[in-house]
Amino acid sequence: MSRTLIALLREGLPAEAVLTDPDVTSAYSHDMASFCEAGTPAVVVLPRTVEQVQHVMRTATELRVPVVPQGARTGLSGAANAGEGWVVLSLVKMDRILEISPVDRIAVVEPGVVNAVLSRAVGEHGLYYPPDPSSWEMCTIGGNIGTASGGLCCVKYGVTAEYVLGLDVVLADGRLMSTGRRTAKGVAGYDLTRLFVGSEGSLGIVVRAVLALRPKPPQQLVLAAEFASTKAACDAVCKIMEGGHVPSLLELMDRTTVKAVNALAHMGLPETTEALLLAAFDTPDPVSDLAAVGALCEAAGATQVVPAEDAAESELLLQARRLSLTALEAVKGTTMIDDVCVPRSKLAEMLDGVERVAEKYGLTIGVCAHAGDGNTHPTVCFDAADPDEARRARDSFDEIMALGLELGGTITGEHGVGVLKKEWLAREIGPVGVEMQRAVKAAFDPHSLLNPGKLF
Amino acid sequence: MSRTLIALLREGLPAEAVLTDPDVTSAYSHDMASFCEAGTPAVVVLPRTVEQVQHVMRTATELRVPVVPQGARTGLSGAANAGEGWVVLSLVKMDRILEISPVDRIAVVEPGVVNAVLSRAVGEHGLYYPPDPSSWEMCTIGGNIGTASGGLCCVKYGVTAEYVLGLDVVLADGRLMSTGRRTAKGVAGYDLTRLFVGSEGSLGIVVRAVLALRPKPPQQLVLAAEFASTKAACDAVCKIMEGGHVPSLLELMDRTTVKAVNALAHMGLPETTEALLLAAFDTPDPVSDLAAVGALCEAAGATQVVPAEDAAESELLLQARRLSLTALEAVKGTTMIDDVCVPRSKLAEMLDGVERVAEKYGLTIGVCAHAGDGNTHPTVCFDAADPDEARRARDSFDEIMALGLELGGTITGEHGVGVLKKEWLAREIGPVGVEMQRAVKAAFDPHSLLNPGKLF
Repeated sequence: MSRTLIALLREGLPAEAVLTDPDVTSAYSHDMASFCEAGTPAVVVLPRTVEQVQHVMRTATELRVPVVPQGARTGLSGAANAGEGWVVLSLVKMDRILEISPVDRIAVVEPGVVNAVLSRAVGEHGLYYPPDPSSWEMCTIGGNIGTASGGLCCVKYGVTAEYVLGLDVVLADGRLMSTGRRTAKGVAGYDLTRLFVGSEGSLGIVVRAVLALRPKPPQQLVLAAEFASTKAACDAVCKIMEGGHVPSLLELMDRTTVKAVNALAHMGLPETTEALLLAAFDTPDPVSDLAAVGALCEAAGATQVVPAEDAAESELLLQARRLSLTALEAVKGTTMIDDVCVPRSKLAEMLDGVERVAEKYGLTIGVCAHAGDGNTHPTVCFDAADPDEARRARDSFDEIMALGLELGGTITGEHGVGVLKKEWLAREIGPVGVEMQRAVKAAFDPHSLLNPGKLF
Repeated sequence: MSRTLIALLREGLPAEAVLTDPDVTSAYSHDMASFCEAGTPAVVVLPRTVEQVQHVMRTATELRVPVVPQGARTGLSGAANAGEGWVVLSLVKMDRILEISPVDRIAVVEPGVVNAVLSRAVGEHGLYYPPDPSSWEMCTIGGNIGTASGGLCCVKYGVTAEYVLGLDVVLADGRLMSTGRRTAKGVAGYDLTRLFVGSEGSLGIVVRAVLALRPKPPQQLVLAAEFASTKAACDAVCKIMEGGHVPSLLELMDRTTVKAVNALAHMGLPETTEALLLAAFDTPDPVSDLAAVGALCEAAGATQVVPAEDAAESELLLQARRLSLTALEAVKGTTMIDDVCVPRSKLAEMLDGVERVAEKYGLTIGVCAHAGDGNTHPTVCFDAADPDEARRARDSFDEIMALGLELGGTITGEHGVGVLKKEWLAREIGPVGVEMQRAVKAAFDPHSLLNPGKLF
């Protein structure tokens, strides 16, 4: 069977695009999530053209072999994990930027383009592609679309979904479908484009995307504010948003995270603070916007408010924030990164609850958060070699999701469901929701060959 | 059958919520589109609660009677038209604003809330609900969601879809499903929320919506620029967008439209101009933004550039634009309003083509356009009592859509497909696209009872 599969794949793919050496293919078995099952794929294919992708899907359908599409495998939910004997369809070789139009403010790209490569390329035209997940130097646009990823920019600029105008998709049976548009507006039929965004490769293979761009904003200026409690920092967040401000970034790091970042990178961040809030503006007059926000921070009890003097200082503060997850991973070797998003009015309750969970399970849980969006990343630090601690880590991870749902939030603001949160998706959307999600899946993938077992 | 239907409906609805008098129900048979078939409904129901909507759908499913949901019936594609013997499910009595939260920047509303009522209510909290279709004083949020409507604001603020975070939906069989979220971000499963936006009531009945709001921007200031050709005006549009400007409005009216507005409302607009461009900014410094845009207009050949002196003058210019469709209707009694959206780089070619079509068919076709989005409304003016002219109107309407598709555009930027553009949807999205749209429909509505025969 596996031999037939590989022989058939080779009929439509060049030799170097079909990898079967287990030492090589095993590297493609999973993404960056902890605690997610993964199997060894039968084969990894690296197509360079739409026709080659169609050939892969036709072959997979003919032989009824499951396929998982992959980008850079930087995902955090196991959505890109292979099953035993599956085909891994890696899109990283389809990495051309096909078009950048400053008048139409769009880019047309293949799925394997790295986010940072696109960002820099459009920047040269005075344009801006906002979505900026932490992995932006590695992750691909196809992966960003598959997982509907977010980043630091979302509080002002929204998530990946808002930048995908149209897609070319290879369906399970190998047929090619175009969705959406390359125009600024369009409502011709059901919005299948958006359906594919965040579908984790379970409905079709994205082979081309039309992305919306914005004019490049002015360089943002950052302010750091220290608080003696996370509650005070969250109050500041609410006051800032209630006050009608539109920061380009509004991030929170708790003390555990600040200490971890200092330990990793000697950044000299203030370790006495319970919560460090970073706010930024990319407006015409960021100094006065930061002054207004600084005053709101002080009114909410900030012990110190330090605006960055210039772009270099701003960049340093952002670097500290971007290092957070890596730094927390260094604490005990392994992390489980929650991704609960709550209404921002519930942010203080959420962080308070996370602290209680950490105490209850005797664990270190650092929190960094896209505070302006209410999107928290409580990060459980543990020693994977200690079975009891690993069990407690898993339990606390779940308890944090339960808390998020209680507060009217969602189990995932930007990392997706994958394997990691399947049970939790069902809890969030309920049995009718799951049934309709499954019905949509069946409409696109009647033999359940596209990344089966993910999401639900 | 009809008697059984009405008796069963009355079991779960108060007497005044079930209308059967044909003189009354016939008023509910269609929306504002021309040339769209419509039948007389068997009954009009006006539920006030979710439970009543569920009762209607359970009854309809039991008896296999089609249902069309309706708001204010201001749609322009026949999407709200009834079929003979159908149930009209009018949501206008479910018109409560349930919540407005300045911290979370959301509103929770029932579907029958009128757009302008919501806009004013959130305005009192310093908030802004951008989508502003021309019918905003009449149309309902439920209708806006069903048709994915746009408006003048879209060039900066996007369309209705971008403001719908979560929905409660009654499915065809009467079950209640919640989609989406009330948080700023969320990627838990397929984006069914977005699937319902623009689905023209064909997938389920929206009974509650969580809407995203923005902080209220400063009052916008408008500039008018006159051009001796539509091409020059379109060049200005391209230069403005290419230059990285973010106007809150960028509208075009051709000479036919300007004259029609003057004839209707004696606005004193300049009739010698071939194209009048309106640009606006709601930025902190609109005067300097307008100056920059004014200079670009002049460079593109504007014969006159007149910035409004104040808010009152700005409002007058907007009124002229908002009157366009009504004014064009007055020209010969009836209009067919196209809604073709092209990449803005193709706007000049589009308008040029429309002129050729008007000449070819010997018709008056006025064009107003959301120029910044490339979204044109070529409006065919004709005498419906003249069969030959009516036929030419219909043919020219189609030819304009063909031109839009040729230029890489879409047949509908914001008015939807409904009955009017069914054949054209198929041309735009192709057979695979139609098949997958139908598969999605079947997943939600296996007996095809929800507004059947619309879209495809």
